[in-house]
Amino acid sequence: MSGWLEYNRGNKFITLRDFTGSCQVFINNEVNLPKIESVITVKGTVHKRPDGNKNPAMETGEIEVVTSNVEVLNECERYHFPLNDYSKAKEDVRMRYRYFDIRSKMMQHNLRLRSSFLMKVRRFLCEEQGFVDVETPTLFRRTPGGAKEFIVPTANKGKFFSLPQSPQQFKQLLMVGGIDRYMQIARCYRDENTKPERQPEFTQLDLELSFTTQGEIKQIIERMLKASWPKHLPDLMMPFPRMSYTNAMLLYGSDKPDTRFDCTIKDITEELSHLSVFDQTTSPVVVKGICIPNGSNVMSSKNVKRIQRAVEAITQLNIATVTVKEDCSWKSPLTKYMGGNDLVYKVNCAFQCKPGDLLFICGHIDWELACKALGRCRILSAKDFSAAGKPLYQPGVFNPLWVEEFPLFELDEGSLVSAHHPFTAPVDEDFDMLQSDPLKVRGQHYDLVLNGSEIGGGSIRIHSADTQKYVLESILKEDSSKMKHLLEALESGCPPHGGIALGLDRLLAIMCGSDTIRDVIAFPKSSDGADLMCEAPCHVTDDELDRYHISITKDSSSH
Amino acid sequence: MSGWLEYNRGNKFITLRDFTGSCQVFINNEVNLPKIESVITVKGTVHKRPDGNKNPAMETGEIEVVTSNVEVLNECERYHFPLNDYSKAKEDVRMRYRYFDIRSKMMQHNLRLRSSFLMKVRRFLCEEQGFVDVETPTLFRRTPGGAKEFIVPTANKGKFFSLPQSPQQFKQLLMVGGIDRYMQIARCYRDENTKPERQPEFTQLDLELSFTTQGEIKQIIERMLKASWPKHLPDLMMPFPRMSYTNAMLLYGSDKPDTRFDCTIKDITEELSHLSVFDQTTSPVVVKGICIPNGSNVMSSKNVKRIQRAVEAITQLNIATVTVKEDCSWKSPLTKYMGGNDLVYKVNCAFQCKPGDLLFICGHIDWELACKALGRCRILSAKDFSAAGKPLYQPGVFNPLWVEEFPLFELDEGSLVSAHHPFTAPVDEDFDMLQSDPLKVRGQHYDLVLNGSEIGGGSIRIHSADTQKYVLESILKEDSSKMKHLLEALESGCPPHGGIALGLDRLLAIMCGSDTIRDVIAFPKSSDGADLMCEAPCHVTDDELDRYHISITKDSSSH
Repeated sequence: MSGWLEYNRGNKFITLRDFTGSCQVFINNEVNLPKIESVITVKGTVHKRPDGNKNPAMETGEIEVVTSNVEVLNECERYHFPLNDYSKAKEDVRMRYRYFDIRSKMMQHNLRLRSSFLMKVRRFLCEEQGFVDVETPTLFRRTPGGAKEFIVPTANKGKFFSLPQSPQQFKQLLMVGGIDRYMQIARCYRDENTKPERQPEFTQLDLELSFTTQGEIKQIIERMLKASWPKHLPDLMMPFPRMSYTNAMLLYGSDKPDTRFDCTIKDITEELSHLSVFDQTTSPVVVKGICIPNGSNVMSSKNVKRIQRAVEAITQLNIATVTVKEDCSWKSPLTKYMGGNDLVYKVNCAFQCKPGDLLFICGHIDWELACKALGRCRILSAKDFSAAGKPLYQPGVFNPLWVEEFPLFELDEGSLVSAHHPFTAPVDEDFDMLQSDPLKVRGQHYDLVLNGSEIGGGSIRIHSADTQKYVLESILKEDSSKMKHLLEALESGCPPHGGIALGLDRLLAIMCGSDTIRDVIAFPKSSDGADLMCEAPCHVTDDELDRYHISITKDSSSH
Repeated sequence: MSGWLEYNRGNKFITLRDFTGSCQVFINNEVNLPKIESVITVKGTVHKRPDGNKNPAMETGEIEVVTSNVEVLNECERYHFPLNDYSKAKEDVRMRYRYFDIRSKMMQHNLRLRSSFLMKVRRFLCEEQGFVDVETPTLFRRTPGGAKEFIVPTANKGKFFSLPQSPQQFKQLLMVGGIDRYMQIARCYRDENTKPERQPEFTQLDLELSFTTQGEIKQIIERMLKASWPKHLPDLMMPFPRMSYTNAMLLYGSDKPDTRFDCTIKDITEELSHLSVFDQTTSPVVVKGICIPNGSNVMSSKNVKRIQRAVEAITQLNIATVTVKEDCSWKSPLTKYMGGNDLVYKVNCAFQCKPGDLLFICGHIDWELACKALGRCRILSAKDFSAAGKPLYQPGVFNPLWVEEFPLFELDEGSLVSAHHPFTAPVDEDFDMLQSDPLKVRGQHYDLVLNGSEIGGGSIRIHSADTQKYVLESILKEDSSKMKHLLEALESGCPPHGGIALGLDRLLAIMCGSDTIRDVIAFPKSSDGADLMCEAPCHVTDDELDRYHISITKDSSSH
């Protein structure tokens, strides 16, 4: 029996561990054992443990191996941190010695779950659904809007590859090529180290179908997740509920609603918009609110204030809070504007308030912004409830949701930009507004949301070269010559097609109950994009740069 | 029924194609059909064809669809080349319009075979053999000997990632981490555009096991290939034969012998080394030869001379040819040195020559070089036989072979370098020679060869930090500080381990009977490393370079 020396009591009783578990070994002669976490082999006989020594808490607690023969295969000179108790090692230490950290129960569980989940995904797609697993290039060309793409210098002076953010264009080209159903577990790249939960390389489950519909794609994803879902987790509700982008914003103030709990946003414009606290001088104000049941009992007033300030800082909106008192009257800065109990009663009715509830109320001329602010209050309150050990939702539950009917474009500093990407087809009935009122055009886009995280997005694509050209040139003002290959392909017999991509790291983190995707990636980069174990990125010599005809700029004071 | 308009006879009879095949459609009204390769949908009824119109050569030749309803989904404005007849389109045109080329029968077959082969490989490894599919990073650090690694600049001034040539180090770190059986279909990178059959990115089936042996690894690979081998191909002989590196060189003059045919190298030193044509002044000469049965009948003397010159140009050796005449005497420049028929008879006996055979003979003080030259003659002759339609081996046959017992190091311009890579463990019994005579040390390395192509290589690795340090520092004179992460890991409880990597592109090309790996890759780069379809690599703007604090060097006259 070979494995890692997990525990040593007086060179007599040891436990030996591998990924399958641990086993007690009794050493019946004098040996000097190596340090904990060394790799050893023991040869001996399996015995039933004496009655008093059995350990029902241990899977192998009924037996032990009796040996006089211990061979040291590799001594552990460097014991980096205890593996049983996680909280003891800080994340940067775990990252620095990741090879050691991977021995822990959690990492073994997560990496093995990832492997078996992906296997089931492939079996469902390729064996049951006729998908073809095609590997697409990662040495690609810079494309419009590719500001976040890493570049790769080549020996061909002044010419660079770029590492793509997704196989989007290649999978569309495969559709033109008659690969009717394509899938890939694809490595993708994004040079963006500002967001702590983003990895410079990440993995996407990518698929695309010809002659398809939104409904078919959604159904395939639902059935795929059901077929691959780990047995030890609660089942997914089928089919997944669907919600329009507008309703998601109205009810949850978010395009990725966490539907594990209620506390949805309610409109109280009728009740409250006349209050003098709201400035009606420019445009009519809408007033929205949410009610957190029992919120003023569970959340400290300090925490409520912290949430209020945090959301105000992001949205520049004023948020009012209300504590519903024992007699259903309010403790709130709003009280003085309410002019009596009638109005309080009306609002209490709207929310079906009970004593101890907490309300967040916000009025603004832009309903979407007001909803966003309240949606944020809603999520932060739920976090507070969880931290207090009183989660607003049943723990371990998985609530998937399709969000659909997104706008195709949005405004960014006065210019139209794609809400998702420039290849999304408009909803058929909105097609004519592409010219007249592009901001009103809905896209045939859908996001998959799980427990309030976006885990995927897809769309029916534009398959007409004319429409694609119009979107790129006339609406987005992009240089379409960089997309010549795709535009030519759309003129070469391109079937209607659509697809989706799921962010596997995020999905697996949710499945594993991890707060960070780093816990489901074998060798992740740190939050600032570095490999702490190998010390990458690192310097390279001038000679090495010479091959690529590049040099490091001398004066970078402007950066 | 939707698909591509494959053929149109007078707007009446058309065939519609998708990847499953073609079907005839009869259009019973007046329509104007779009161009060939447009995407259309027809709605109609399936009819038995009239008796005279049946086409037994077509899978759907018994039926046709009768319709009056043709919908054009996408008109093909650009018909790039005929898809039925391959020889008509040159490779650069096929690459330029790859999305079109993929519609061809061959590319559909190759890409779909690739997908299903990989699926079976995964099922065998992960479901039957307990391997864990782990994704390892491709943004890595430059390592010793990494001259062929692409670099990736980062926003962190002067610091670069590199794209690894294989997951070698990560898979060893996974062994330290207790992932006892690891597998990955891994994207690998090599900046090397001098070899036409090398792609800058390629795919490797990578695996590694703890507590293993060479025998176990070989058996897993053999069983994996058997389990995944396409049904329509002849079976693989099990177990695969094994041959030492020395014997491979002695018999085939190559470390990747093509064992589909015989014509092995024979030693005729005893018979011929005394001939005055061989210069014995410095060291004793060994004389080697091969016999190509019927060679002087099948191969033109012009071709024989071409082979002779080509091999002489590479090896700087003189090669003599012999035509065995009807009476078994020789037509050869050697005749005049032979001093009569006795010696001719002796050599004829050694090769069991028959009239019409062709001999290549080569004498040199370095047996290995002489064998290499003859091995080359052997392969080139076999190619000539195939071109003449008389292949030396049964077509369609697959001959796998393990080559083993390679030297661990070799000399490169007077310095010791790793024959494979610096992590290979020496053969146990040669361990002591690491210090005394490293060139004599054999490595625990093994190559997998198929039909004369190397399709994989692996080894048992060094798992002792001391040995690894000694090899890196004292033998290879490398800066081991760049490998600190690995050396520290070997001191942290590292199990003995070994593994292998197979080059999937090459293996699939052989399985598909393709001459080039480009035929089994969806979007390959051209032989000089460019994507002709997307026009990559390409220029990027100075602004984009600024982000990475690099600039293109002004004067590159020295490069």
